[in-house]
Amino acid sequence: MADPTARFKRHLDQVALDTEKLLERLLAPAAVAGERLRPARLLEAMRYATLGGGKRLRPFLVVETASLFGAPRRQALMVAAALECVHCYSLVHDDLPAMDNDSLRRGRPTVHKAFDDATAILVGDGLLTFAFDILSRPQTHQDPALRVRLISALARAAGIGGMAGGQMLDLAAEGRYAGPKLNFDDIRNLQAMKTGALLVFACSGGAILGKANRKELAAVERYGAAVGEAFQVADDLLDVEGDSATVGKATGKDMAAHKATFVSLLGINGAREHLKTLVRKAEKAISPFGKDAEVLKVAANFIANRRS
Amino acid sequence: MADPTARFKRHLDQVALDTEKLLERLLAPAAVAGERLRPARLLEAMRYATLGGGKRLRPFLVVETASLFGAPRRQALMVAAALECVHCYSLVHDDLPAMDNDSLRRGRPTVHKAFDDATAILVGDGLLTFAFDILSRPQTHQDPALRVRLISALARAAGIGGMAGGQMLDLAAEGRYAGPKLNFDDIRNLQAMKTGALLVFACSGGAILGKANRKELAAVERYGAAVGEAFQVADDLLDVEGDSATVGKATGKDMAAHKATFVSLLGINGAREHLKTLVRKAEKAISPFGKDAEVLKVAANFIANRRS
Repeated sequence: MADPTARFKRHLDQVALDTEKLLERLLAPAAVAGERLRPARLLEAMRYATLGGGKRLRPFLVVETASLFGAPRRQALMVAAALECVHCYSLVHDDLPAMDNDSLRRGRPTVHKAFDDATAILVGDGLLTFAFDILSRPQTHQDPALRVRLISALARAAGIGGMAGGQMLDLAAEGRYAGPKLNFDDIRNLQAMKTGALLVFACSGGAILGKANRKELAAVERYGAAVGEAFQVADDLLDVEGDSATVGKATGKDMAAHKATFVSLLGINGAREHLKTLVRKAEKAISPFGKDAEVLKVAANFIANRRS
Repeated sequence: MADPTARFKRHLDQVALDTEKLLERLLAPAAVAGERLRPARLLEAMRYATLGGGKRLRPFLVVETASLFGAPRRQALMVAAALECVHCYSLVHDDLPAMDNDSLRRGRPTVHKAFDDATAILVGDGLLTFAFDILSRPQTHQDPALRVRLISALARAAGIGGMAGGQMLDLAAEGRYAGPKLNFDDIRNLQAMKTGALLVFACSGGAILGKANRKELAAVERYGAAVGEAFQVADDLLDVEGDSATVGKATGKDMAAHKATFVSLLGINGAREHLKTLVRKAEKAISPFGKDAEVLKVAANFIANRRS
């Protein structure tokens, strides 16, 4: 068998291909359920927002953790597609002028630039709704009780106690609303909600699908939380050190906004040290799975050291 | 027993009270699941968007149809609360400057006026997500298979094939995007998606909860569709004939926007005639339920003749 790094790259590429194919099928003009008049503009914009881009890290984590527990890959891909809809919706809404006002995403114009603000708002609404449609389908899992567990977990990861709440706190961190100065723990909490919650769901979603026991579920969630924080520290470092052509979105924004980030609080070297600690934490969390989890260990390192 | 009209008014008032109380409890600061740092601003704005207003027509329809089939009222109210979260999210997003740009709703400043655009976007996202959280809970129904049916039905009613798609078409109807001129059938389809789908779900949600058979479900869905269209015709008439103080939102907007509506296509008298036909259709659809459905018949008339 190839070395873990090569296997990781192969797995990541394959999941990206499979996710793309599934989203393409789920969002095919003929497959959108229940429509009468076809809102072609909305569908086109939803496809623009979800297809043809991204590393598909979240889908990768769903598929890898699901495979730890022997869950069928085609079911894991359904969960991955739903999660990717939520992730893409959040990017579309966060990029809006009223939010982060970004015009570049994955090296392409953001949805509100390619279409318009109203369409971008509806794209986000449509994708968030569609995620729950996908999870409610029997193809996701034959047991409705398990589908409900996935739906509940995703709703909590994405809602006010998770991603949406984290984005609200992130806007406050830019000083937009009155409030206390954020310390290290505040930033960790904020990021655990904004970025971490969906990455934890990626791992717990796969484990739920594979009927992991409580201890196994807790282990992959610890892994997901460490990877989620590492993802964000790396993001903050890229904002300082990366150039926008490589990163695929605007950089240098945090400093310009005097925003509290891991880098502003720890410094560049401190942030790099923290990153190492997080990778060790992630590796330790999944060490009970032995050789099966080797690819996930490589993934943690990849996420921490990514250049885009 | 009091006459049907008095009973209808009593039922409507009671559902409004009960829905308010349940939403108050579900959105209580201590009850929001999973949060670490409390995004107080977001919670406050979500409460502003959902509490203290509205006739609660959709909750009323859920509770009434559920009672036709003997489903427990407390379960019907959970479905009603979830549906009301979706309805309120759609108002918040539709009112945004990029969409309909409204500053008045239920006689109060809209969410983006009382807070700001970014908060309003997140309020909508948070409420939409929360609706699926609510439906996934065992309190909604003990059987997860039934909860998944509700989730699937709501996702389809709210998504690109339903409300979100209808809103996209509605923006197009204002001439914002290039496209063919809309005829009567186009407007009916558009409104069936934009307004009708959630009102149909209100009825089918109650019926699903009460384990209605296929024929019974079809009957209440026909009722919901007729009532949904009547609701919109009445809305179009109010936009022409109502004053904003009574209606609680801006009026005269459709004509100013040269927008194709039931009134612009049928004229005022034609729209009034169409309204009568729709009420008869609604009454006929639920006539098989006999005396049990009397309050729903009054409701159809009330919705058609509402002044606000």
